[in-house]
Amino acid sequence: MTGRLIGVGVGPGDPGLLTLNAIDALKAADVVAYFAKAGNPSNARTIVASHLNGAEELPLHYPVTTEIPKEDAGYRDAIRAFYDASAEAVAKHLDAGRTVAVLSEGDPLFYGSYMHLHVRLSPTYPTEIVAGVTGMSGCWSAIGTPIAQGDDVFTVLPGTLPEYELERRLADANAAVVMKIGRHLAKVRRALDRAGCLDRAIYVERGTMANASVMKLTDKLDTAAPYFAIVLVPGWEERP
Amino acid sequence: MTGRLIGVGVGPGDPGLLTLNAIDALKAADVVAYFAKAGNPSNARTIVASHLNGAEELPLHYPVTTEIPKEDAGYRDAIRAFYDASAEAVAKHLDAGRTVAVLSEGDPLFYGSYMHLHVRLSPTYPTEIVAGVTGMSGCWSAIGTPIAQGDDVFTVLPGTLPEYELERRLADANAAVVMKIGRHLAKVRRALDRAGCLDRAIYVERGTMANASVMKLTDKLDTAAPYFAIVLVPGWEERP
Repeated sequence: MTGRLIGVGVGPGDPGLLTLNAIDALKAADVVAYFAKAGNPSNARTIVASHLNGAEELPLHYPVTTEIPKEDAGYRDAIRAFYDASAEAVAKHLDAGRTVAVLSEGDPLFYGSYMHLHVRLSPTYPTEIVAGVTGMSGCWSAIGTPIAQGDDVFTVLPGTLPEYELERRLADANAAVVMKIGRHLAKVRRALDRAGCLDRAIYVERGTMANASVMKLTDKLDTAAPYFAIVLVPGWEERP
Repeated sequence: MTGRLIGVGVGPGDPGLLTLNAIDALKAADVVAYFAKAGNPSNARTIVASHLNGAEELPLHYPVTTEIPKEDAGYRDAIRAFYDASAEAVAKHLDAGRTVAVLSEGDPLFYGSYMHLHVRLSPTYPTEIVAGVTGMSGCWSAIGTPIAQGDDVFTVLPGTLPEYELERRLADANAAVVMKIGRHLAKVRRALDRAGCLDRAIYVERGTMANASVMKLTDKLDTAAPYFAIVLVPGWEERP
């Protein structure tokens, strides 16, 4: 009898945005696993801290930062080996019949690291997903800004795209979210400007955390931004 | 002292995907309002039924179906008058100092009807948003299908778009969700085919409900689809 794998979305940061199913999954778990940068606490673990009832914890520490270009072959090899080893560490518990909950900030199958375990383990082990509130939903909700309505086309763009691609796609969408801002802020700002949507762009740092920082992008005068900052471009321009 | 308006995301259908904040909002509410088609129960109310503790209910019944083309001037006038009247009905309670929770399937500010009340009332009344799990997250989670990863461009498209627009935008995205399928299914299928992504398209009806229906779109042999059916086009094609 193998154990069960549960990919648990823990939402964008506010522990109040945990779902009942997420809390049930934590109660059912023999092992709670989560990704984290070495030397840093896991955000996902912080969100669920008050619901951990003595389950064994399995931290999975990234061997490299995520700011290395993904085209780098050494990076790709290192990160692949890390996900392989992480999947093996989880599989050992599943083989022993234990239920393993893997925490995922936001929604597990929407740009989540959990997906790297999912594709390796779900073909072999019984697997469930607990959907979660995404980081971007947390951001536009925290500031009460409608993002898309009616027949809007809504697009999520990584800030890593080339500038002309960002510009072209921003000009072609009614509403957009640009993720992974980090060192790409100056480029993203130029692309927004040329696409004609800089004026309505909103810069959000640490979304639904207590120390969130939100401003119109035109009011942000520097280019220092953390990797997980996002920019919202609200749609629904024909609103009544 | 006016009351407080709370836009409450109730998630995609499974009551287990309610958040703790949503349940707190229902506890705090003097009035629980929700949109519904006349003669139909409200899906959102069904989701929260076990958490209603005798608060006054304010159903807001659509005067027309949503299948009338939005370009129709008569439709636009009727729906605008309806949202105006709905906002007034909610405002009466807020003026009397009552806390009003407005239920919203999925996430309130992501294509939600609640937004029509939000833009009318939030400039005047203290307003909070409880973010929710979106319908699309519920769908891809229920079937355990990763939707987007890494530097994927992810796009949400309404099935109402012209065929060539659907084709062009599908061909230009790594991952996509097509919403509001309804009578547009045949057109959406042709656009997916010409964009080269029909083979990986997944058709989902009633997402996370007990009577959900999920199949590869190529296995769906008819063109009968409800308005709220969606098509998922998973990205992350370079997965390890």
